[in-house]
Amino acid sequence: MEEWDEIEVPRNVKDIFVEMKNTAELMVDLAYSSLLFNEEEMAEEVLELEEYLDLLNYHLMVHAVLAARSPREAEQITSILHMAHAIDDMSNAAADLAKMVLEGVQLHPVITEAILGSEEIIGKIYVSADSILVGRTLEELDLATNTGVWIVAVRRGKRWIFNPDGDFKIFPGDVLIGRGTDTSINYLKEIARGNIKVMGDGRA
Amino acid sequence: MEEWDEIEVPRNVKDIFVEMKNTAELMVDLAYSSLLFNEEEMAEEVLELEEYLDLLNYHLMVHAVLAARSPREAEQITSILHMAHAIDDMSNAAADLAKMVLEGVQLHPVITEAILGSEEIIGKIYVSADSILVGRTLEELDLATNTGVWIVAVRRGKRWIFNPDGDFKIFPGDVLIGRGTDTSINYLKEIARGNIKVMGDGRA
Repeated sequence: MEEWDEIEVPRNVKDIFVEMKNTAELMVDLAYSSLLFNEEEMAEEVLELEEYLDLLNYHLMVHAVLAARSPREAEQITSILHMAHAIDDMSNAAADLAKMVLEGVQLHPVITEAILGSEEIIGKIYVSADSILVGRTLEELDLATNTGVWIVAVRRGKRWIFNPDGDFKIFPGDVLIGRGTDTSINYLKEIARGNIKVMGDGRA
Repeated sequence: MEEWDEIEVPRNVKDIFVEMKNTAELMVDLAYSSLLFNEEEMAEEVLELEEYLDLLNYHLMVHAVLAARSPREAEQITSILHMAHAIDDMSNAAADLAKMVLEGVQLHPVITEAILGSEEIIGKIYVSADSILVGRTLEELDLATNTGVWIVAVRRGKRWIFNPDGDFKIFPGDVLIGRGTDTSINYLKEIARGNIKVMGDGRA
């Protein structure tokens, strides 16, 4: 992520708020992923996102406080700050998880087992050259709807792409890090291996 | 939820840990849902789950501390307690959100907009009598894989069912509360209305 003074922060309370919520959720996914795969770079991204979230929170507060014009509005605006605080708490918890990776703490095997044994798990999906995923964008594929897997990061060669956007085009050899149920992850793995050639109901 | 002395707590560290992680994630989904729909009963469930999670955390600590037999094991076990603490922080943040509903705080409209404008949103899905969902269990339907929607609660008449399990059979008139992308939620809504008669790639 770039330096903060180059970062564009959304310009209204709603957009800042949405960005905060999305960022915190991404942080949680990346934090569990970094623990599961013992990936320092991913853990570092979580800490950078934490700083970004603090910046968003600051902008939110400035905007929110400026917006209050009556006691009723002030109470409503307090509810925004309250929710922002809760989101910030969640992001701090995610950062605490990521710090375990960076501090090189000896992780108990139960940590991996718990991440892989939950209702929603994190999976690593290798894309083979003859997969229908290759050459298509995440927006076209809409994996969240068609397979139930939410892509949080992609490893391409030595490089990580975190939170890839809709324009991101999948290459052969990409490694997708996804969150979903066990069944969803296995389904996407079969598609990524080239064993399943049609996805969803054929809409994709 | 029943009284705690009737509640069965899993008997080993891994299962307790998985239960804690699942519970915290459910709490976050239910907390956002309770804010979105201003549902007190849902908010109360979040607070009950918080107590349940505290109980799990206590059992985890007892089991974990008993298990340590060497300094290396002690360090590894510390990592479990560290992660449990982070999960507990996330659940507390979810409880803070739920308390806003119970305290009757005047919520700013931006809160609803942010929950509905995020990458993953919460949706309310009405099941009509001629939907293919009717009469089938959540396990058979596997909505998480086939539609990308995670069902967090169901409203049946005046009753809420939170975190319905795989055996749960859908009835006409049920209202599903689900988490997913905007596209996923809309896709499931079409299925629930009876407008789409085949789901996923026909596996279901």
